[in-house]
Amino acid sequence: MDFRAVALPIGKLMILIATFMLVPAAVDIAAGNPDWRVFSTSAVVIGCFGALTTAALSGREYAFRRREAFFFVNAAWLAFTLAGAIPLYGSSIEISFAGAFFEAASGLTTTGSTVLTGLDQMPPGILLWRSLLQWIGGIGIVVIGIWLLPGLRVGGSQLFALESSEKANKPYGRIEPFVARLMILYGGLTVSCTLLYMVCGMTFFQAINHAMTTVSTGGYSTSDSSFGQFQGTAVFWVAIVFMMLSALPFLSLIRFAEGKSIDDKQQIQALFIIVFIASFLVFLSERWMDDDPPFHLYTIAVFNVVSVITTTGYAAKDYLLSGNFVIAIFFLITFLGGCSGSTAGGFKMFRVVILISFVRSLLRRMVMPHRIQPARYSGKPVSNQVLEGILVFSILYAGTFAIFAAIYACMGMSPDTALSASITALANVGPGVGEIIGPSGTFQSVPEAAKWLLAIQMILGRLEIIGALLLVTPDFWMET
Amino acid sequence: MDFRAVALPIGKLMILIATFMLVPAAVDIAAGNPDWRVFSTSAVVIGCFGALTTAALSGREYAFRRREAFFFVNAAWLAFTLAGAIPLYGSSIEISFAGAFFEAASGLTTTGSTVLTGLDQMPPGILLWRSLLQWIGGIGIVVIGIWLLPGLRVGGSQLFALESSEKANKPYGRIEPFVARLMILYGGLTVSCTLLYMVCGMTFFQAINHAMTTVSTGGYSTSDSSFGQFQGTAVFWVAIVFMMLSALPFLSLIRFAEGKSIDDKQQIQALFIIVFIASFLVFLSERWMDDDPPFHLYTIAVFNVVSVITTTGYAAKDYLLSGNFVIAIFFLITFLGGCSGSTAGGFKMFRVVILISFVRSLLRRMVMPHRIQPARYSGKPVSNQVLEGILVFSILYAGTFAIFAAIYACMGMSPDTALSASITALANVGPGVGEIIGPSGTFQSVPEAAKWLLAIQMILGRLEIIGALLLVTPDFWMET
Ligand SMILES: [K+]
Ligand SMILES: [K+]
Repeated sequence: MDFRAVALPIGKLMILIATFMLVPAAVDIAAGNPDWRVFSTSAVVIGCFGALTTAALSGREYAFRRREAFFFVNAAWLAFTLAGAIPLYGSSIEISFAGAFFEAASGLTTTGSTVLTGLDQMPPGILLWRSLLQWIGGIGIVVIGIWLLPGLRVGGSQLFALESSEKANKPYGRIEPFVARLMILYGGLTVSCTLLYMVCGMTFFQAINHAMTTVSTGGYSTSDSSFGQFQGTAVFWVAIVFMMLSALPFLSLIRFAEGKSIDDKQQIQALFIIVFIASFLVFLSERWMDDDPPFHLYTIAVFNVVSVITTTGYAAKDYLLSGNFVIAIFFLITFLGGCSGSTAGGFKMFRVVILISFVRSLLRRMVMPHRIQPARYSGKPVSNQVLEGILVFSILYAGTFAIFAAIYACMGMSPDTALSASITALANVGPGVGEIIGPSGTFQSVPEAAKWLLAIQMILGRLEIIGALLLVTPDFWMET
Repeated sequence: MDFRAVALPIGKLMILIATFMLVPAAVDIAAGNPDWRVFSTSAVVIGCFGALTTAALSGREYAFRRREAFFFVNAAWLAFTLAGAIPLYGSSIEISFAGAFFEAASGLTTTGSTVLTGLDQMPPGILLWRSLLQWIGGIGIVVIGIWLLPGLRVGGSQLFALESSEKANKPYGRIEPFVARLMILYGGLTVSCTLLYMVCGMTFFQAINHAMTTVSTGGYSTSDSSFGQFQGTAVFWVAIVFMMLSALPFLSLIRFAEGKSIDDKQQIQALFIIVFIASFLVFLSERWMDDDPPFHLYTIAVFNVVSVITTTGYAAKDYLLSGNFVIAIFFLITFLGGCSGSTAGGFKMFRVVILISFVRSLLRRMVMPHRIQPARYSGKPVSNQVLEGILVFSILYAGTFAIFAAIYACMGMSPDTALSASITALANVGPGVGEIIGPSGTFQSVPEAAKWLLAIQMILGRLEIIGALLLVTPDFWMET
């Protein structure tokens, strides 16, 4: 392991995050809020730290192999989260360090669970910083998801591996040709979403914040009532469209914009089918209990389903008041998540599709042992390596969910709160089920130790578990 | 599909179960209880039905291929459960047909969940019939588990396939050489257990009933307080030893008794290791809250852990009063189950062992892509077919658990009761978690529809899901 190969890019990233801190600093100066000092001091300290690291290590080429890549993503998440937590901890809001770390981790992983209340009265710098953390996290996740995880063959994602570079010491493909187009796509989505939100009646500040947390499928809001503060149906449909776009594979969006054919259609289809069925079921059971106009009910049903399945986590209305059937639907779709290579988290649609195909092919083989049909994805047979990766991911996803839920239960959460907290953190959705952590609640009252564990679980979810778990296996540290 | 090939053995089995009905009839005559009429009438009707079917179909040889075998195990479970439910429904106890079907299914699958209260005042015929259902079910499961499921390659169990016969139309191995030895083992365990229970102070009736429900890991009792009615520690250790023996692979027990070497050691080791760790953890947390003598506490801790992990489900003391940590341990071990080829249900130890080995080998391969080490079991590499079977089983086990839990929640159960009901039925354990279905409760108050679903889930668990699920796939019914 060459730690210098890891420290150098982290130094550069620290300069980047320090630069971003100047934005809330400027806004707080304009608003006359004293927090600007905290943001600018943090920017200077973290910026200097990053610049020194970069200066000390640059000029030479370090081997950045599989081991370094795994260590890098973990170290980068930790460094980013710590850097993001510092201004929150130092600011005028009352928050413990565990709370600040939780809030920053929840932001950068685009989970969107919060420990804060009174958002409506909060200084604009803090609100903007939370949205910025999600926005930075969102594009970071896209890059990790289309470049690093497939290269490292995490959880079957090598199915979407980029074309490999010629250099032998880089296992992953070349991201360089895509960087500019990804930035244009992400920026374009953010700007369009901001403008459309303004057309639907949001203020500029509301629009830019919600646009950043929509396209990152993050879900932070500028109000305790989240999307419940907005009237009408248009603003919800804008959010629905941009949440769905942000949960689609970004490389496919680029290919589509360039008029090329899309080859991983099947996960997109699966996402739309599940959204359609789930929101219709929710609509039906709401219609049965509620006298609102049907189209408004349907809008809110689609909004809530899309918000959960794209792992955004905005709340329009507390869907948990609609009975056990609706709660069960929301609990189940919390596991699923969006498409790979998007800003969404969760189990991911391509895994759902391939698992179903795998189970079907094996059941068929049991009846007709001589007809062997492998699992397929978008018409092509899936290799054994991809399949094994997906299966290991499934086991670890279920195991991580169960073990953390058990720990939360031991810490005194009720069983349903514990289960829901575990999956909402692991799938990076945000709100859970139950009074405390449901769409109307916050994570403020959970024990400090649970906040640390939830933050770790969010990062585990983002690195698709295996990307983080490897670091604690003895094999990883064994020199070969 | 040749339905005659299925109807013939079912006819024979109906004669068998009719014969067994004469035992409670005789006991009720001796006790002067009017239920003897119900038992003897049921015996005559079901016996005639079986005899007619057998007479009509015997004398010819029918093709009993994979398809017929799958259909047979399902039809046999259903026929047995219906036959077992009839005398319960007709008897002097107040019970709905859904309740009687649930009770019979719970008996034959050796689940041991009950809808009955007031067991202590119940006529002896009913109590004996419940125990007999479990005892018959227990040996039935052993035969299915070592002969039919491996032959049908259900869930990776082909790892333990018997030597195959020469006839090409029988996919499964030869059970005939083992039948006599299995009967002797099962009978011997039952007799020894009965005698030792009597030595520890049980009456003959208590001893024979509890012995039958111990060696079948069934868990029905003759008292509402289950094992809570017994004093001292000796009786608990007798139960612990016989529950553990009944959760070990019966073929290995036979090999051991014959002085031969045992080749599937690893699942036995895993069972003992988990029992040891879990019961020590339970002991520690009980010790912290309870002033009882340590050895007594330890005895009860081991008893409860063994009772749950062997899927017996006796209750000594309501372990759910001991706090969330203990509840979490019991909830987690409810999933696991005993060894394959035993009377125990659940996920099974060999799958746990192979899954751990598989995950470890894949994590290792991610760091060192050129060192390929397959998953191993008891020192031998596991074939891809076995591994795939285990993975499909895992997915279906988790999926069945989640879907049924969601349905129970929609029927109005609280989330923790729903989750616990789903896994305790699927793993054939018996008692769940929570006030209603916990060790001190019964399933009496759950909705009638939930009773049917729970009964189906118990049978699904017993046929290792795939054995039953195949019947509802279109491929199964397609002629080839
Ligand atoms: K989120
Ligand atoms: K049982």
